[in-house]
Amino acid sequence: MTKLLYAKKPEAKNKMPPKDNKAKKEIIWTKKDLIGLEYLSIEEIRLILDHAKSFKEVLARPLRKVPTLRGKTVVNLFYEPSTRTRTSFELAAKRLSADVINIVKESSSIQKGETLIDTGRNLEALKIDVIVVRHNASGAATTLSRALNISVVNAGDGWHEHPTQALLDIFTLEEKLGKIKGLNISIIGDIAHSRVARSNIWGLTKLGANVTVCAPKELVPPGIKELGVKVTSDIDEALKDADAINVLRMQFERDKPDAFPSKLEYFRTFGITEERLKKAKKNIVVMHPGPINRGVEMSGEVADGINSVILEQVTNGIAIRMAVLYLVTHAKKG
Amino acid sequence: MTKLLYAKKPEAKNKMPPKDNKAKKEIIWTKKDLIGLEYLSIEEIRLILDHAKSFKEVLARPLRKVPTLRGKTVVNLFYEPSTRTRTSFELAAKRLSADVINIVKESSSIQKGETLIDTGRNLEALKIDVIVVRHNASGAATTLSRALNISVVNAGDGWHEHPTQALLDIFTLEEKLGKIKGLNISIIGDIAHSRVARSNIWGLTKLGANVTVCAPKELVPPGIKELGVKVTSDIDEALKDADAINVLRMQFERDKPDAFPSKLEYFRTFGITEERLKKAKKNIVVMHPGPINRGVEMSGEVADGINSVILEQVTNGIAIRMAVLYLVTHAKKG
Amino acid sequence: MTKLLYAKKPEAKNKMPPKDNKAKKEIIWTKKDLIGLEYLSIEEIRLILDHAKSFKEVLARPLRKVPTLRGKTVVNLFYEPSTRTRTSFELAAKRLSADVINIVKESSSIQKGETLIDTGRNLEALKIDVIVVRHNASGAATTLSRALNISVVNAGDGWHEHPTQALLDIFTLEEKLGKIKGLNISIIGDIAHSRVARSNIWGLTKLGANVTVCAPKELVPPGIKELGVKVTSDIDEALKDADAINVLRMQFERDKPDAFPSKLEYFRTFGITEERLKKAKKNIVVMHPGPINRGVEMSGEVADGINSVILEQVTNGIAIRMAVLYLVTHAKKG
Repeated sequence: MTKLLYAKKPEAKNKMPPKDNKAKKEIIWTKKDLIGLEYLSIEEIRLILDHAKSFKEVLARPLRKVPTLRGKTVVNLFYEPSTRTRTSFELAAKRLSADVINIVKESSSIQKGETLIDTGRNLEALKIDVIVVRHNASGAATTLSRALNISVVNAGDGWHEHPTQALLDIFTLEEKLGKIKGLNISIIGDIAHSRVARSNIWGLTKLGANVTVCAPKELVPPGIKELGVKVTSDIDEALKDADAINVLRMQFERDKPDAFPSKLEYFRTFGITEERLKKAKKNIVVMHPGPINRGVEMSGEVADGINSVILEQVTNGIAIRMAVLYLVTHAKKG
Repeated sequence: MTKLLYAKKPEAKNKMPPKDNKAKKEIIWTKKDLIGLEYLSIEEIRLILDHAKSFKEVLARPLRKVPTLRGKTVVNLFYEPSTRTRTSFELAAKRLSADVINIVKESSSIQKGETLIDTGRNLEALKIDVIVVRHNASGAATTLSRALNISVVNAGDGWHEHPTQALLDIFTLEEKLGKIKGLNISIIGDIAHSRVARSNIWGLTKLGANVTVCAPKELVPPGIKELGVKVTSDIDEALKDADAINVLRMQFERDKPDAFPSKLEYFRTFGITEERLKKAKKNIVVMHPGPINRGVEMSGEVADGINSVILEQVTNGIAIRMAVLYLVTHAKKG
Repeated sequence: MTKLLYAKKPEAKNKMPPKDNKAKKEIIWTKKDLIGLEYLSIEEIRLILDHAKSFKEVLARPLRKVPTLRGKTVVNLFYEPSTRTRTSFELAAKRLSADVINIVKESSSIQKGETLIDTGRNLEALKIDVIVVRHNASGAATTLSRALNISVVNAGDGWHEHPTQALLDIFTLEEKLGKIKGLNISIIGDIAHSRVARSNIWGLTKLGANVTVCAPKELVPPGIKELGVKVTSDIDEALKDADAINVLRMQFERDKPDAFPSKLEYFRTFGITEERLKKAKKNIVVMHPGPINRGVEMSGEVADGINSVILEQVTNGIAIRMAVLYLVTHAKKG
């Protein structure tokens, strides 16, 4: 629907490189929404990462605020509770000087049976600028995006995508390892029910990483290989040549897998321990989207260890979300 | 208690009309509160509508914010959940650059048994400027208003009044039809339990409209005719000469009327359909305070159809609430 | 760990007093946190009270806002619901122009089993500046304080401390009675389960007041005398020579004491009534941290009477919290 523009400047080709070192081809963001990494080009992903890098510098200042979105309003529309993602988006918006309104399921008219589209149209009629939506139905963000002229940012829709999480994972990886292309990345845990896994797979494979998913057999979704990943249920194989692992949260409270009657058993079979890491590359990067179940997905020692970049992921999440909120509200006609 | 002032300028009477075309008599807002349309004069209603018109222009700007209430604090004190009204007030306050604090029943000390007046006095002691209160008891806003020196805005009290809703309905009607005087307006639905109906009746009759209420017999409150309205239980009669209809939300979750065992039956008897609209005036204006139960109060086609102004009502709600918050915080001594 | 600095200026000692009347020794705030009055020196308490006095003047202005914390973010992390304390901190932060994020237990990842320290580290990674924490476990604020480099302000931890409440009580007392030293102060109610009592005892005894606690025998905690207070279960004795009483809220909903099967019986034995006050000093100051149970801890007449400073406490709470948020974010190296 929307596409990336290459503003060619052919007259510059045979000249000296311009003094201000501007890129010869300018990439322009043209999408009003961010729905998933499946729908982004490599250049668009790169544009978000580049903007995030600039915004991360803002976070290092004493006054961590820029007036970029002053007068704009971001609504966090959360049909699933999530302190962590909601707070991150709220902070990102406030650092851009936007106003933020939080709407959570408990106190909303969702209980009164209003449809998602009607809720979205209402917010649009309230003249807000961005809806950040989390919903338990896959496709909810797409539905809103199609129905509305204002920007929609997907903060997680069912088992579909959680694009800003994958973008912050990729940003952190690149910061640590200098590149994505050619890296071996293993995603470990409940792949079947993970939008984080899905978004990471789309993004990482587009950027040229070799992705392995490692999960109990029951939690490997059918057709996952078609996304270009290797599949294993052997944690040691997943760790063997990995440059980085992304360890997913086990949602025992939501979907108790029959194959894993206890957290302890999961930890014994798939949990990341210092012992297991010894057999991996020395500088392996350990990621987790949080919140961590210590002693389930990984030991406390690993979570707090020198390979862990878990808290850096959190910091980078703000930068990524600032970049996304900036780009979708400044989309140019393609 | 408070009254509207006419600042007479008798010396101007025999002179040439002033160049800048200022009104000869200046209407001054003198009330610290907005409790209901029953207590407003025609001039005061007009003053709110005029200010809302100005504030609506602000909403059309790229930077939809004015510094009018900078440094002031508005507290949304909601004893009933309502995303829609709370969000509208929150946005209105933020567009005026006020700080906003949300207090909802679930997390409040109401559970601890504090009286409404003690809660109000506490907020007053916290040096806030406006309490926007929604409460399930009729008269709650009046109670607070009398106990406190700070401003109180009624966001719905029991079955009593919901003045900003009626004001935005009237604003929308006037915007669409150019006037209120002489219009035939039908209010359709559960009149007995509707503060929206009550506020609309007070406002519309004061401004000279002919108001008909249409409800199942069991949902016609006794004494309603004394407010100067016609009463019918025949939907076709309500539609016949109507310039506009205001279709109320059926609160099946709250007060299931025995007379209407099913939503379907309500829809068949009172629901607004395209077929029923064909027998009405061609340009009939269809309003609904939201959230809509599609297929109950009206069909989806009507809700989204060319006669519907439902989303314009939502936009106008922000303008009306900006006007109200501005006026009550800038009340002049009468 | 941290200590108060006295920047001595010996060369000024034998000189004329400086014209601008600056203190000869300058007290510097060096703590990044406020955990409890037990850990503060007299000079530190005085520093908070002095700053609160300045901030109280801000609250009297038409524009009750200063840019002191612009660009900073305060997170209210509340594991127990408390409208009143949360609202007071939120207002204090907003009056200082800080951004505020509210995280309450209901919608947070606490349900997902994340540890307090992990939650804290996440907030730190989000580059926020202050965590205001309320938790049902005594020591929670200390735990966070030790784990994090950002500021932690205790908004009540279990039965341990509620320092800002005691500070506002002391501020109010001094405002009313001109001093704390030598005053007779009785704290009345459920001493055993009261962090308000504990913080008041630490602060008042440090500042030289004579403190009596009055409670049903079952609600006198063991070892309380070692804090330097007198103990009685006779309400008349507690009132006899008191310059002020601090009447605690009875938490019937939380810890129903078997010794007091009914609120009425509590009121008859310990409730503050006009009749009981007649036997006390004429100008006795009546305090209550709120929310009041009228007819339980005191009669409505006393709560609203001329001795009551309950609403002034509320106002002073904002000033105290502004002072605390200012000081912890501007701590100097000791």
